[in-house]
Amino acid sequence: MSRLDQLRASPLFRNVPLDALQEAEKVVTSRTYRAGDVILEQDEPGEALYLIVDGVVRVSRVSLGSRERVLADVYAPGLIGETAVLSRGERSATVTALSATTILMLYRDHFSRILRRHPDVLWNLATLLADRITQQNDELIAFGLNTEAALAHVFCGLYEQRRVAGTLQPEVLPLSTQDIMQRISASRETVSRVLRKMDRQGLLRVTPSSVTLLDITALQRLGLDDTDSD
Amino acid sequence: MSRLDQLRASPLFRNVPLDALQEAEKVVTSRTYRAGDVILEQDEPGEALYLIVDGVVRVSRVSLGSRERVLADVYAPGLIGETAVLSRGERSATVTALSATTILMLYRDHFSRILRRHPDVLWNLATLLADRITQQNDELIAFGLNTEAALAHVFCGLYEQRRVAGTLQPEVLPLSTQDIMQRISASRETVSRVLRKMDRQGLLRVTPSSVTLLDITALQRLGLDDTDSD
Repeated sequence: MSRLDQLRASPLFRNVPLDALQEAEKVVTSRTYRAGDVILEQDEPGEALYLIVDGVVRVSRVSLGSRERVLADVYAPGLIGETAVLSRGERSATVTALSATTILMLYRDHFSRILRRHPDVLWNLATLLADRITQQNDELIAFGLNTEAALAHVFCGLYEQRRVAGTLQPEVLPLSTQDIMQRISASRETVSRVLRKMDRQGLLRVTPSSVTLLDITALQRLGLDDTDSD
Repeated sequence: MSRLDQLRASPLFRNVPLDALQEAEKVVTSRTYRAGDVILEQDEPGEALYLIVDGVVRVSRVSLGSRERVLADVYAPGLIGETAVLSRGERSATVTALSATTILMLYRDHFSRILRRHPDVLWNLATLLADRITQQNDELIAFGLNTEAALAHVFCGLYEQRRVAGTLQPEVLPLSTQDIMQRISASRETVSRVLRKMDRQGLLRVTPSSVTLLDITALQRLGLDDTDSD
């Protein structure tokens, strides 16, 4: 894929005029990472945003005196690091490559200039941020209900991301119990117990390194994913 | 305050050129509500956004088969309803006036036109949305830790909003146990037990209708509010 096509595929540059894409093409820098590489480090200044062109990354955060908490996985063509760039703050999270990953890096000054010259790009960004807020509200509510709702919410979200990204077998989620504990802040005992219950109910099947979703409609209902929007 | 000054005080129109303010001035509609009035209703189409000029509102949501969940209180000069307008979706939450409230209503079409003609306004909006995402991430992490962190996070957030809004005695939060249960999705027993513990530790003092914060620095540490940004 040409760099111009990579930009065109990014939700940030979707349906924007060609001159905005060409301006971005001149200033982005491509970087590649191997699985396990750290792409962004928590608490460092946020000087650039990253368009994920290929691959999957994990966004996680360590808080004072607490375990690592996984906030999200982001699939290509996704966007990371934009909040620190907008707020001129530090990175609130660490981003690690889960697979071989290619990104296009866009420095704050270039990004600001493109946003100010091309309101369509800024409009896309605002829409992406608004969608993220809605998803986080859903997540706060599902997580507040019970472990079953939290798990169903996380699983359906990952499934949807994998489906949209064109991943093979999007319903087979590569998650260990440890991964799930870090994602929903629950103990190993609780996660194992609730997974066994959902397995018995025919909602999913669990192996030590994966969760296969069997009844996605029922899981969506459980995770409140049909009450989305705003 | 003139309407132009009301607009100027809104975070959406902060530091934007006069012509953007004047354009908005021509198209906004003022409305007033009494305490208890419903301003926006969940699941209705989101056709306008609301600038809160005076007063305090509560944002809450009812999910399938679950109790009402309070997502946030918003103080003047705040903004509500912008995510549904950007995503062209339905309202994901109900907004109720907690006090006498004055708002300026801005319809989607007018809002889009202003955003496209005045990138400064769109930039402000993107920054507001990015800050909201950061706050929600903090909240997800605090809520995932334990009830004490969740309570400290909610209390410090409200204190900060009240302080910025110039509310008298910002440290005296008008919250009942019921209010708190709806905010953090915990049982009455858990909320009461943890509040008593925090009261004994000298962090706060509880009455049936209020929580007075006594040691805000310690509460901020407990609620992880010093690990903010991005």
